[in-house]
Amino acid sequence: MSQYKVKLLLSYDGSDFAGWQRQKDGSITVQETIEKVLSKMFNEPIKISGSSRTDAGVHALGQVAHFLAPKDPAKYKLRRGMNALLPDTIVVRDAWLAPDDFHSMASAERKTYKYHILNHPIRSPFKRHFSTWIDRPLDIDHLNQSCRHLVGEHDFKSFQTTGTELKSTIRTVFSAEWVPLKNNILEFRITGSGFLKQMVRNIVGTAMDLNFQRRDPQEMVEILAALDRCKALGTAAPEGLYLVKIVYPDTLDKRCRKL
Amino acid sequence: MSQYKVKLLLSYDGSDFAGWQRQKDGSITVQETIEKVLSKMFNEPIKISGSSRTDAGVHALGQVAHFLAPKDPAKYKLRRGMNALLPDTIVVRDAWLAPDDFHSMASAERKTYKYHILNHPIRSPFKRHFSTWIDRPLDIDHLNQSCRHLVGEHDFKSFQTTGTELKSTIRTVFSAEWVPLKNNILEFRITGSGFLKQMVRNIVGTAMDLNFQRRDPQEMVEILAALDRCKALGTAAPEGLYLVKIVYPDTLDKRCRKL
Repeated sequence: MSQYKVKLLLSYDGSDFAGWQRQKDGSITVQETIEKVLSKMFNEPIKISGSSRTDAGVHALGQVAHFLAPKDPAKYKLRRGMNALLPDTIVVRDAWLAPDDFHSMASAERKTYKYHILNHPIRSPFKRHFSTWIDRPLDIDHLNQSCRHLVGEHDFKSFQTTGTELKSTIRTVFSAEWVPLKNNILEFRITGSGFLKQMVRNIVGTAMDLNFQRRDPQEMVEILAALDRCKALGTAAPEGLYLVKIVYPDTLDKRCRKL
Repeated sequence: MSQYKVKLLLSYDGSDFAGWQRQKDGSITVQETIEKVLSKMFNEPIKISGSSRTDAGVHALGQVAHFLAPKDPAKYKLRRGMNALLPDTIVVRDAWLAPDDFHSMASAERKTYKYHILNHPIRSPFKRHFSTWIDRPLDIDHLNQSCRHLVGEHDFKSFQTTGTELKSTIRTVFSAEWVPLKNNILEFRITGSGFLKQMVRNIVGTAMDLNFQRRDPQEMVEILAALDRCKALGTAAPEGLYLVKIVYPDTLDKRCRKL
């Protein structure tokens, strides 16, 4: 029986989901919601595999996942059909027939996340699920001064929330920058080879706490060097975090065909 | 017993409310949600009066309301106290002690609404409550050509959804313009002396239908002149509509004191 590997580009509002990954406790996750739709379309159980296990409340603009289709997906209007069956909190932005050696997680070359903070004395009803509200003023220069120490290849063990056993906690951060946007939003944008569990939220929480406690931004270096989660500071709330983009090698992208 | 007139500037996400106005059927409205908070703070029943009766699902960036406080509101941290008690879907942006002759509806000089359309083949999980998704391409020039005929003093009876008895259906529209924003949003922005029931949604729906049916934008003139709701076309969905701003005479604003 021939199978077809399909790559999906997905966006979702994570507010009402218990994260990406299928759970045993019956709570509704993004992964199982998509699997139910695909299983219905192909009339047999289908499992999908995502590039990143986003936490409950975390959003995705460009999550990537793959699955094996038991029938030729070119015969389905896959994107349109999935979007008609999915709840309005999840959307398939694009779909490709991918080569057999493509794997959404293993093939990923780099990932970009962004974190939005509403930094204003008054909260916003419109941003309540899409940013973290911080009423005390943050100093964007201080945030940038501490976070620039993260760029490069480092052991990020201090910023890993325990729970998953990993062979290595070494990752490369290509860029990490805070930018002010309009409407009092501060955006943190970070691109890396990969991220440990809650690494971005732990970085954002630590940078904010260093700022609030008027500590030297240089302390980020010591926290990183400690290789100890207890040395890092707070964990920022999930609702400000977005998985923005996953980049794969050109050689793989070139062998994907739009569905 | 002395009373104090208070003016409030409010924002709310209308998604989960049955509109602004108190309902007899027990459905939850913005007005009664705020009244409950004020009644609790002042420890006696308080009624508030809003400048515009927004429909279910319609949002407000700058709704204005007033109420009579039985005790000196300057002795309360009014904004902070209200925001602590209100659900996160409603926020008090500002509060003033207003002169006795201020009335949120009767004193209003002009109002601005905006309407957001996501015009793209693929829907957005993030905009689902905050714009109307239209997958067929709209022509912004056509929309502007039809809507410019609305500017000026006219009888807008053709764009009034029946239900409320009004002395006059004559209103002045000061400006009405479509502008493309980023992320495939088309924004319609309209400022007028006042608006009839569902007038903005009926205008947007009619302009879109004239565009889709490839009719002459000039037909807007005939629809306006007909003074007949049956001559106008569709009614746009509520979730794309925002009450942006209410403007009062300077002479009144000058006599308001920040709380």
